[in-house]
Amino acid sequence: MAILSELATEVLIPVAGIIGIAFAIVQWVLVSRVKVAPGAASSSGSKNGYGDSLIEEEEGLNDHNVVVKCAEIQLAISEGATSFLFTEYQYVGVFMSIFAVVIFLFLGSVEGFSTKSQPCTYSKGKDCKPALFTALFSTVSFLLGAITSLVSGFLGMKIATYANARTTLEARKGVGKAFITAFRSGAVMGFLLASSGLVVLYITINVFSLYYGDDWEGLFESITGYGLGGSSMALFGRVGGGIYTKAADVGADLVGKVEKNIPEDDPRNPAVIADNVGDNVGDIAGMGSDLFGSYAESSCAALVVASISSFGINHDFTGMCYPLLVSSVGIIVCLITTLFATDFFEIKAVKEIEPALKKQLIISTALMTVGIAIISWLALPAKFTIFNFGAQKEVSNWGLFFCVSIGLWAGLIIGFVTEYYTSNAYSPVQDVADSCRTGAATNVIFGLALGYKSVIIPIFAIAVSIYVSFSIAAMYGIAVAALGMLSTIATGLAIDAYGPISDNAGGIAEMAGMSHRIRERTDALDAAGNTTAAIGKGFAIGSAALVSLALFGAFVSRAGVKVVDVLSPKVFIGLIVGAMLPYWFSAMTMKSVGSAALKMVEEVRNQFKNIPGLMEGTGKPDYATCVKISTDASIKEMIPPGALVMLTPLIVGTLFGVETLSGVLAGALVSGVQIAISASNTGGAWDNAKKYIEAGASDHAKELGPKGSDCHKAAVIGDTIGDPLKDTSGPSLNILIKLMAVESLVFAPFFATHGGLLFKYL
Amino acid sequence: MAILSELATEVLIPVAGIIGIAFAIVQWVLVSRVKVAPGAASSSGSKNGYGDSLIEEEEGLNDHNVVVKCAEIQLAISEGATSFLFTEYQYVGVFMSIFAVVIFLFLGSVEGFSTKSQPCTYSKGKDCKPALFTALFSTVSFLLGAITSLVSGFLGMKIATYANARTTLEARKGVGKAFITAFRSGAVMGFLLASSGLVVLYITINVFSLYYGDDWEGLFESITGYGLGGSSMALFGRVGGGIYTKAADVGADLVGKVEKNIPEDDPRNPAVIADNVGDNVGDIAGMGSDLFGSYAESSCAALVVASISSFGINHDFTGMCYPLLVSSVGIIVCLITTLFATDFFEIKAVKEIEPALKKQLIISTALMTVGIAIISWLALPAKFTIFNFGAQKEVSNWGLFFCVSIGLWAGLIIGFVTEYYTSNAYSPVQDVADSCRTGAATNVIFGLALGYKSVIIPIFAIAVSIYVSFSIAAMYGIAVAALGMLSTIATGLAIDAYGPISDNAGGIAEMAGMSHRIRERTDALDAAGNTTAAIGKGFAIGSAALVSLALFGAFVSRAGVKVVDVLSPKVFIGLIVGAMLPYWFSAMTMKSVGSAALKMVEEVRNQFKNIPGLMEGTGKPDYATCVKISTDASIKEMIPPGALVMLTPLIVGTLFGVETLSGVLAGALVSGVQIAISASNTGGAWDNAKKYIEAGASDHAKELGPKGSDCHKAAVIGDTIGDPLKDTSGPSLNILIKLMAVESLVFAPFFATHGGLLFKYL
Repeated sequence: MAILSELATEVLIPVAGIIGIAFAIVQWVLVSRVKVAPGAASSSGSKNGYGDSLIEEEEGLNDHNVVVKCAEIQLAISEGATSFLFTEYQYVGVFMSIFAVVIFLFLGSVEGFSTKSQPCTYSKGKDCKPALFTALFSTVSFLLGAITSLVSGFLGMKIATYANARTTLEARKGVGKAFITAFRSGAVMGFLLASSGLVVLYITINVFSLYYGDDWEGLFESITGYGLGGSSMALFGRVGGGIYTKAADVGADLVGKVEKNIPEDDPRNPAVIADNVGDNVGDIAGMGSDLFGSYAESSCAALVVASISSFGINHDFTGMCYPLLVSSVGIIVCLITTLFATDFFEIKAVKEIEPALKKQLIISTALMTVGIAIISWLALPAKFTIFNFGAQKEVSNWGLFFCVSIGLWAGLIIGFVTEYYTSNAYSPVQDVADSCRTGAATNVIFGLALGYKSVIIPIFAIAVSIYVSFSIAAMYGIAVAALGMLSTIATGLAIDAYGPISDNAGGIAEMAGMSHRIRERTDALDAAGNTTAAIGKGFAIGSAALVSLALFGAFVSRAGVKVVDVLSPKVFIGLIVGAMLPYWFSAMTMKSVGSAALKMVEEVRNQFKNIPGLMEGTGKPDYATCVKISTDASIKEMIPPGALVMLTPLIVGTLFGVETLSGVLAGALVSGVQIAISASNTGGAWDNAKKYIEAGASDHAKELGPKGSDCHKAAVIGDTIGDPLKDTSGPSLNILIKLMAVESLVFAPFFATHGGLLFKYL
Repeated sequence: MAILSELATEVLIPVAGIIGIAFAIVQWVLVSRVKVAPGAASSSGSKNGYGDSLIEEEEGLNDHNVVVKCAEIQLAISEGATSFLFTEYQYVGVFMSIFAVVIFLFLGSVEGFSTKSQPCTYSKGKDCKPALFTALFSTVSFLLGAITSLVSGFLGMKIATYANARTTLEARKGVGKAFITAFRSGAVMGFLLASSGLVVLYITINVFSLYYGDDWEGLFESITGYGLGGSSMALFGRVGGGIYTKAADVGADLVGKVEKNIPEDDPRNPAVIADNVGDNVGDIAGMGSDLFGSYAESSCAALVVASISSFGINHDFTGMCYPLLVSSVGIIVCLITTLFATDFFEIKAVKEIEPALKKQLIISTALMTVGIAIISWLALPAKFTIFNFGAQKEVSNWGLFFCVSIGLWAGLIIGFVTEYYTSNAYSPVQDVADSCRTGAATNVIFGLALGYKSVIIPIFAIAVSIYVSFSIAAMYGIAVAALGMLSTIATGLAIDAYGPISDNAGGIAEMAGMSHRIRERTDALDAAGNTTAAIGKGFAIGSAALVSLALFGAFVSRAGVKVVDVLSPKVFIGLIVGAMLPYWFSAMTMKSVGSAALKMVEEVRNQFKNIPGLMEGTGKPDYATCVKISTDASIKEMIPPGALVMLTPLIVGTLFGVETLSGVLAGALVSGVQIAISASNTGGAWDNAKKYIEAGASDHAKELGPKGSDCHKAAVIGDTIGDPLKDTSGPSLNILIKLMAVESLVFAPFFATHGGLLFKYL
């Protein structure tokens, strides 16, 4: 048996969760010391934001007007975001309620709504709980997952809108101060999300086990609903938020930057508030829900496979909880890592920002490797068996350590490749910028080619992880590899959230009429944020690929499928149609962004035409109408793609059966991953190629610039095209592949019993 | 047994081939009556080009200068194309020779270069010819396939460059005359290619059988080399030609249309000859090789499966030849269909062109359905068995009729969907044109979304064909479904080739300084040609999907794989890496076009700067340097993507074995089809959105135009981006998926014996 006792496990997990939450609160308090009220400008005092003399100071820190203006703008953004999210949640709430009923009915019908116990599938000779109750508990865990995801996204948005103006104000004191404020706020979100996900899952397992008792098969079957709930919420968050943010962004840019030649985030632009709201509801709330979903799903996938392996059969609680223990260690590791950015070192110059963020990734990965080694040694028996499509496979504890680590390191490789292809410090983006010499067309051609090329190494990294972890521990190996990639999620999210916060901070500086130097500082933060956002998306996609494969494996196991043979026409048609789904989905989301942006453009043009003195700065734009356009469009447009993703597994499973559904899942996975990676890297590269020309930091860049040159105009077109690719369709595809897999897993017993109607009756 | 005797089969096939060739020659003669020499302007005389009074006449038909100029330009284009193809063939020749040696060595090594007979694999108890001789014959048929493909492409180019100026001259007499000339020339190519492919294959089978005698297993195994040869040649033709044509086109447009505001094909543009040469080497020679490859491969796939089914085992020659008989009927059907366009009806107005071309598709499909029914009834026994991964499956003759027909009709559906998404008569392209109001960025977003969306129905059509034809007759069903889609290849090619010929005709009219009305007529021909080109690509992609699946099935059968299980990590990593290959390949080809176009732009700009009086029309541009840039770039740049496609199956099969290779093939197939369809439709839509604005035929279009407006500029950018998508990377992907499959099939015995080294020794 393992070294770690059951009691120690019972203590360790919640303690790690609570430490994470406490750390988040401490960071929040530190951020809140920056006052967004006139007369009490700065936390001042101690080192790195809590006790140190100011590094560089300029402008009257107590300039009353600026602070008041910042507070006003922050309020407008925060109100806009809150009101959008509430509207979104109303619609999603209705959907979730209906879907909860569907889950209950479909799963309840498996045994004909019988309340009698039934023989277990895997633990031979034992009796398991009735399917009706598992249906009920699945529904409950689905709702719990959805609510946790919703709260995660909402809190993230609240924190970000709380931190944006504070970052702007701190930027007056220097780039280091601003960086720490933005990064701390990101950390609040990261730790809150990682810890609450862990704690809620842990509590749910413990509460459910009061009913299930010895029946771990049923217990962890019902827990999979948690992953489905988290991902369903994430889908609407990503798609709705993605359409919102890009409709506003594209609309604002097309009129503001291209037609009127006013800077980004200029307060005269009527769509500017909508644009800044969008960053918070799309990049923050959407991404928070997304990564939470990945985390919940990989945990569920690992748990459900473990429950039918030796851990579950022998009731080895510590072994069962290995996925949760890995996450617990991750929280502690990320906590230490965060201190490197906020306390152990200090940022003094712009060029230190990106290395500091990169160091976060490296440090957390290195520390986590040690952490995994320790927890694998403590929590796992030397030898145990893992379920492998009907047979049991022997695995050793160091083998499992290897599975988790390979996922973790594959994530780092994907992160670095993404950085290479999207940062303007390297030749790929510089080549794209250079191609702007001959206009927008070559810029687009080079950008698309860059995105396609950036797929190669990540796919090899994923393929190697899959092969190695599967060879060692079958589908469980893949599930824990995914968990390994996500184990440093707190740091990943902190880095990720940092980006949009800085973006917003820049927007507020511009709108509040602060000096050029402040704007330059926030721009530098934002440029680093663009790359880290791309890295974050790389992680999200890589982990999504592993997670969905693990879920796919779990689905196949539970549906009783032994072989998914490409040579069977049922499977092959699934495969080719599945590979088509990401295109269908992308067509919908991109068209939605395009149409919404067109409406936004019309509105902004009208306001410039009809509001007297708007261009001169004497008239006041009508921000609210633009906010409303984005809100209405995204709510309306998120439904068809959402329905496509949610209904496909139900329809295919019910009409065509589990074999075709397996094909669809595999096809969507292998095709979706490629589009997701290429779309987000293409978009990131265009964005940074534009920034490269704007910044003019090298001779080459100066030659292409300055702002407003023909090259720059071509670069702006590329950037605008990239917006929906990198922030709407690309990242939503992660959820497409994960969600279809987890939904299939939840409904597997139903499909196995009642599915394939069409083939049955034809 | 079948109604058709062996002797009748032996007669019917070559007779159909000879009729096809004779018909092509007649068409050629009719085209050649248009004289490109001063003083003898027109064939004049009989109806529809051989005996009728002129429909509408204007301009001095015998205007000496114009005719001389046309002849000059034609010569320049023809010489440029010939010299490029010769250069290309030299490089490809070296490659083919090396690859021929590889084939011989790899296949010879299967039985250790033994010259002893070996027991057959499928005909139990019989002796088959030694592997060494099959290696030798495979090599020979590989070379034959390559040469036939090369000759097909070259002849196509010759015909097209012969016809282009003739079409221009005929356009003086009216749009109907020009249409007939262009269409007849297309038909020359279509019939020559379909017939020679059939005849060469037929002769090869008969000659090889002198050696093989009773051993049909070995005979048809060695015949698969024919498909590989055809496709290898096609790969280089498509990629090399594609890079050539688009480097020239993009380069010419970027400087000419965007910077200098001179019309397309203006003789002052130094890249204009290279651009027109490109149409002939890319769209004509490349496409000819491509479709020939598809045809050869689907025949080979069907034959190799038939040879191990009851046809082969019972030595039923007529049954064996069913694929060739279908093609023979196809030639006759297409011959009748062509008469509808050239003789039975007459085009009198611009708006009749597109319906006339569409009618060709419908008529040929309808007639062919009857033809298939007749030949299935005549050539097939009522019941027979087909090899199905180890077992034999009973099939009826009407079942097989159904398989071929479903392929044929799926092709028509794909064609119409493609037309709907790429013709500017329908809302999708009009929406894209409308999005140009807000600039190039929205145009690109809408265009990409359109391409993604256009994938949906074709994929469903392909999926249904696969399911139905597989259910009826296993992999043989899929192979004959592909043949069905390609059975009307002569008409398809005629329509396809018609496009670039019209495009060239327009270019010549512009360069020869002919009047605006002539240019309008050729433009109308060309606009219809754009849509038909997209339809042709749709056919090519759809048939490629079916062909590669059939080849995949044949490969799996011959490699002795019984199951390709997605749940096996060996297969899954193959699947995900395979799905990545089309991206890698597209990245290479698009980047190549981009870089070559940049060089072209620099050269054209330099010429405009350095050649005095060029812009005013007094200086003479240096066309030759531009031709050289395109030639050098395409020769150099076609090697890496070519190597990627040719080496992948060899490396994967040798190092990772047949299971992983199966995964790679399936992954590349399901992912490549989507990108190919979306890329070619996106490009086609952008091109026609631009033409829609230029033509200004409706109120809506007038509002967006005219040429030179902001909307039009945005549309030109989209068109330029679409060029490499629709003419380089998109269509090359067909070949990627087909070629990897046929190569795997040819090398299957080697991989099955010696493959998977890495897994063996690890």
